[in-house]
Amino acid sequence: MSEQRKRSPEATIRRLPARAHYERGTIDAILDEGLVAHVGFVDDGRPLVIPMVYARDGERILLHGSPQSRVCQVLCEGGSVTVTVTLVDGLVLARSAAHHSMNYRSVVAFGTGVELTDAGEKEAAFRRIVEHVVPGRYADCRVPNAKDFETTTVIAIEVSDVSAKVRTGGPIDERPDYDTPHWAGVLPLTLAWDAPRADEHLADGIDVPNYLRGYGRGAR
Amino acid sequence: MSEQRKRSPEATIRRLPARAHYERGTIDAILDEGLVAHVGFVDDGRPLVIPMVYARDGERILLHGSPQSRVCQVLCEGGSVTVTVTLVDGLVLARSAAHHSMNYRSVVAFGTGVELTDAGEKEAAFRRIVEHVVPGRYADCRVPNAKDFETTTVIAIEVSDVSAKVRTGGPIDERPDYDTPHWAGVLPLTLAWDAPRADEHLADGIDVPNYLRGYGRGAR
Repeated sequence: MSEQRKRSPEATIRRLPARAHYERGTIDAILDEGLVAHVGFVDDGRPLVIPMVYARDGERILLHGSPQSRVCQVLCEGGSVTVTVTLVDGLVLARSAAHHSMNYRSVVAFGTGVELTDAGEKEAAFRRIVEHVVPGRYADCRVPNAKDFETTTVIAIEVSDVSAKVRTGGPIDERPDYDTPHWAGVLPLTLAWDAPRADEHLADGIDVPNYLRGYGRGAR
Repeated sequence: MSEQRKRSPEATIRRLPARAHYERGTIDAILDEGLVAHVGFVDDGRPLVIPMVYARDGERILLHGSPQSRVCQVLCEGGSVTVTVTLVDGLVLARSAAHHSMNYRSVVAFGTGVELTDAGEKEAAFRRIVEHVVPGRYADCRVPNAKDFETTTVIAIEVSDVSAKVRTGGPIDERPDYDTPHWAGVLPLTLAWDAPRADEHLADGIDVPNYLRGYGRGAR
């Protein structure tokens, strides 16, 4: 593992270490395929977890939100944060109830936030977030203006520890259970998209853009 | 809102309150459709977020894991927890970069865990978790035995505060942006499943069960 990441004891996966991955390529591919991150922070001693759109920027993770939101306030004050991205690839049906599982790919990244205040940096972050969700879109929308920057906090998470966890393959049952009459295998799950639905106020003559017709996530 | 939930100030959604829902029916439907929860807890002052399979049991949420896992240890010690379930329904493309959004349904539930140790309660929890993921499956698998109970911690989250957040519909742009030439609308997203793949060790003559052929989540 020549690309293995430095990691603290906290970031070393203790449970099912065979599923753990620390290579940058594995981590980046999961972060780039996901759409929503679950962002955890501590607010008055309580753990909070909220779904947020994000984008990867090298080894950093970009988030944005309202300046009034609790997550932005905590992160701008330097509070620590966990960003978790999970892709579910299948349901694993074992012969025994206890060995049912899921095939999934997840990344857990720990770090702290820093607010981006420079207009150039903020615009680059907007671009990365829009392009993360819909590649090709940023060149086909009205770019952020001064008011947009004012009403949006942009935060870069400097990641200190990151790891991925991946489960693939079929069920693993206990020896005697292979003789039971129960079906076993995997139900593959994927994210799918339907035809784009135009806004009711869309002006005549604006066609569905090519970057939406060919939309897809990851290499699946 | 006759079914409105009691809630503390912490659980009252401050951002975009028009998207907030506190009715039990809305909350239950989201929890019942989701497959994976993102579970947040505090470990040595750090916020951790991990993906876990779950099930709803009335107003409680059931989790399970290895007795050695940090999440089980923290929850068995009475640590507070947030369970967040998010369903992504579509990408919302606005004419301006800043007004891009997602259609989604999410539940954020705060509470504390209690370990279930009674064998009957544990089996009922196994049943609920298996049935949550694949309705109809529990009657068609080998039920948990004493060893399974020993190697699995089952936790019930007693939820003290819970709320849902839902965004639907098309983009909302600023007045001047409606005259720009950019396509606007929604790209609907759904979870999809492919044909079940039998385990390579499956004995001859065991067909794909009907509960898998007709698999589906929620009312979509």
